[in-house]
Amino acid sequence: MFYSLQIVALDLGIKMITSFKNRDVVSILDFTREELETLFEYADKFRKVEGKLNLLNGKVVSLAFFEPSTRTRLSFEVAAKRLGADVVSIIGEEASSIAKGENLADTIRMLDAYSNIIILRHRYEGAAKYAAEIAENPVINAGDGIQHHPTQAMIDLYTVKTLFGSIDGLVYVVLGDLRYGRAAMSFIYGLSLYKPKKLYVVAPQLLRIRNEVLQILKERGLPIEEKNDVREIISEADVLYVTRIQRERFPDPMEYEKVRGSYIVTLDLLEKGKSTLKVLHPLPKVDEIDHKVDTSRYAAYYLQARLGVPVRMSLLSLVSGVEI
Amino acid sequence: MFYSLQIVALDLGIKMITSFKNRDVVSILDFTREELETLFEYADKFRKVEGKLNLLNGKVVSLAFFEPSTRTRLSFEVAAKRLGADVVSIIGEEASSIAKGENLADTIRMLDAYSNIIILRHRYEGAAKYAAEIAENPVINAGDGIQHHPTQAMIDLYTVKTLFGSIDGLVYVVLGDLRYGRAAMSFIYGLSLYKPKKLYVVAPQLLRIRNEVLQILKERGLPIEEKNDVREIISEADVLYVTRIQRERFPDPMEYEKVRGSYIVTLDLLEKGKSTLKVLHPLPKVDEIDHKVDTSRYAAYYLQARLGVPVRMSLLSLVSGVEI
Amino acid sequence: MFYSLQIVALDLGIKMITSFKNRDVVSILDFTREELETLFEYADKFRKVEGKLNLLNGKVVSLAFFEPSTRTRLSFEVAAKRLGADVVSIIGEEASSIAKGENLADTIRMLDAYSNIIILRHRYEGAAKYAAEIAENPVINAGDGIQHHPTQAMIDLYTVKTLFGSIDGLVYVVLGDLRYGRAAMSFIYGLSLYKPKKLYVVAPQLLRIRNEVLQILKERGLPIEEKNDVREIISEADVLYVTRIQRERFPDPMEYEKVRGSYIVTLDLLEKGKSTLKVLHPLPKVDEIDHKVDTSRYAAYYLQARLGVPVRMSLLSLVSGVEI
Repeated sequence: MFYSLQIVALDLGIKMITSFKNRDVVSILDFTREELETLFEYADKFRKVEGKLNLLNGKVVSLAFFEPSTRTRLSFEVAAKRLGADVVSIIGEEASSIAKGENLADTIRMLDAYSNIIILRHRYEGAAKYAAEIAENPVINAGDGIQHHPTQAMIDLYTVKTLFGSIDGLVYVVLGDLRYGRAAMSFIYGLSLYKPKKLYVVAPQLLRIRNEVLQILKERGLPIEEKNDVREIISEADVLYVTRIQRERFPDPMEYEKVRGSYIVTLDLLEKGKSTLKVLHPLPKVDEIDHKVDTSRYAAYYLQARLGVPVRMSLLSLVSGVEI
Repeated sequence: MFYSLQIVALDLGIKMITSFKNRDVVSILDFTREELETLFEYADKFRKVEGKLNLLNGKVVSLAFFEPSTRTRLSFEVAAKRLGADVVSIIGEEASSIAKGENLADTIRMLDAYSNIIILRHRYEGAAKYAAEIAENPVINAGDGIQHHPTQAMIDLYTVKTLFGSIDGLVYVVLGDLRYGRAAMSFIYGLSLYKPKKLYVVAPQLLRIRNEVLQILKERGLPIEEKNDVREIISEADVLYVTRIQRERFPDPMEYEKVRGSYIVTLDLLEKGKSTLKVLHPLPKVDEIDHKVDTSRYAAYYLQARLGVPVRMSLLSLVSGVEI
Repeated sequence: MFYSLQIVALDLGIKMITSFKNRDVVSILDFTREELETLFEYADKFRKVEGKLNLLNGKVVSLAFFEPSTRTRLSFEVAAKRLGADVVSIIGEEASSIAKGENLADTIRMLDAYSNIIILRHRYEGAAKYAAEIAENPVINAGDGIQHHPTQAMIDLYTVKTLFGSIDGLVYVVLGDLRYGRAAMSFIYGLSLYKPKKLYVVAPQLLRIRNEVLQILKERGLPIEEKNDVREIISEADVLYVTRIQRERFPDPMEYEKVRGSYIVTLDLLEKGKSTLKVLHPLPKVDEIDHKVDTSRYAAYYLQARLGVPVRMSLLSLVSGVEI
């Protein structure tokens, strides 16, 4: 897989949009803290509801996943169906073959004609923004390129809020691939809307956060600091956000093997931290978290996955103009 | 991909069937002009309806796409779901693997047992007819072989009717692959049920309409004429129907490159025609229509794609015996 | 494809579970004869119902097919939808890619979070049991490894009951792959809950039933006997259960060709049996049954396929605690 390495200009200016209705969801930075609070209030309500609602009855939601992601796809699909919407999907081999042939604009026009909301995942930077410009119906970015995965950031922030009562005032450590990992970057962008006490970022040399991005985040007042070793700061952390380090990022397999070892989260490491420390991970994980952590008090990633449905129900409702 | 090159005997005799109920839809030639008018009246009604109806509640529609086609599949799926039906699908890798192993008859028997309507796409000439003989429930041909794609023809004719008020009395130019392109052939068969003023067909030497077909169409009274160059007759045209010319049809890549250039529709070409000229294309298109045409007054192909849903809703309703 | 050749310890002890509610369905041997009778009574009722019910309204059923099986998947999907449930699926390329990367435990946890019932098909022996241990919601085994496909056995037994009024007292011949064929093995395990008059098993040398399994079944009182040639005992048979012999099982293609010829079921063979003889096959079949049998009085496999939906509707209802 190839990613566009071109840095997309970061528009960090907060937009003042008073309503979610009919709105495209391209980047977590399109939202204000107040808007996210509204989203989280909705999610609190949806968490308490079992079964099916009829809030989106008669609506069709299309899922166009030109890059695979079972978890994101299924949680959107369950969210849409539990709201009463019908769902149609482009996934798998069919998606790959479209990605090779047909132009994206025509595909988006088709989905725009057949459905009321388009949920798009694409490996190209800016694909969601481009789709949003073409479609009359709202487009929701389910991950594109290497920076933006806004609904994952919403879920991650909501998980922190659920666990700690507040997103402000905590010490965060983000560990893993900060160069190509859009979940981690979107989480960091999301934190820039809040007031974390401290944000440490820890990545292998090759996968460090881009300097331009770091500068902009610092200018925005985010107390972000790079560290070489998670062990230096684990004792301060409230939240440890872990992402995968992909072998394919390394030209030299030996280099990968060396690096990987230093980025595996074990119970030993976590026991050096606070007893209230929580580990987040956007999943799927491979071996970057030792399996013993899964059943420990530190693991918050299964809760995080579970919260994907109520958060996405909230977003779909708000974008459809449904009030609850 | 291989196609059966055997010419299927054309049964151009008009069949008198007074009702759509429980009927198989194999070829556009199975229908009378009067029946298509009924279909179009239903489509007019469905176009005005938003959201979901309960006309097919409790029915299961199965989509068996042994050849991929996202647009046809999605518009059938949306049509079925908006009518209240449940949908199950065989697509992608699963469909390819069935196409390789299991015999089609057994697959059709399975779908016949599990669903109320079978929508079939297959690369083999006659697959839909064969399936229709096996299944007790109605089979709808979503494209098989190189001649028949009846629901595409219905949509195309309905698009013309929507744009011009009538299908009769117009000058048509059909451009592209007339040898293997079933959408173009089905459109031409559909026109043979009406009274076009003139029908010009323009194709590269290797992809010309089969002589036997041409003779039969002429005998049926269709004012069809072959032309070598679209520029000769563009000034007369009301409707320009464009289809893709596939590289794989040409033994010599150089031959393809030469031919392709003469079959690209540009704004320059269209501006030599009537100001009311409309371009149709069954989509997906690759580069046979210059992108500048997409946003011009000539482009009718996005409307055409959009009309896929109401036309297919009409057909599914009529075949299910629903009156509206 | 590789299968675990390790013999899983057979727990043939009958479990006394008075209710189906929230129960995992791992092996046909988890059920008592009485429980199966309850299931079959439900199936009798569902067979008489057309259209859609609302028994599982608000429930989400997830289908995770890490090994392809169109028939099993579609009949589960239709069953769930006709009961009013929503369905989400992991199939095809997506399933293969998960099977390669993510650990099964995390995938099951995700499905457990998003849905109310998990239907799992996997090539590894014991996958369903493992999933059942992880998930809080019920897991239904749609086939794993080389021994267990409990819902297929339920359908097969129900087909016999529908055809003959009783499962007891009949002479059964099971023909084909008894070493790797989980449908045949599950049917045999199922028969061990009943009192067949006789059970003959006929398989090529390489695909004979495992000795350990044979011994245990004999100890349980099943009147099972191996035979080399189906022609020896066809005249006694009431039910001939046929399964596929896969080329890949044979190291030597010539050996396969020789064997295959002796395991093709023809009208000639069947006419040597009782006039009431019925042929079952879990489908899909390739060439192990001559096509002339398909339309003969002997063929019961299309009925068997058709009964897949009511039996699976029954199981889904019972597991969900629905009473009808």
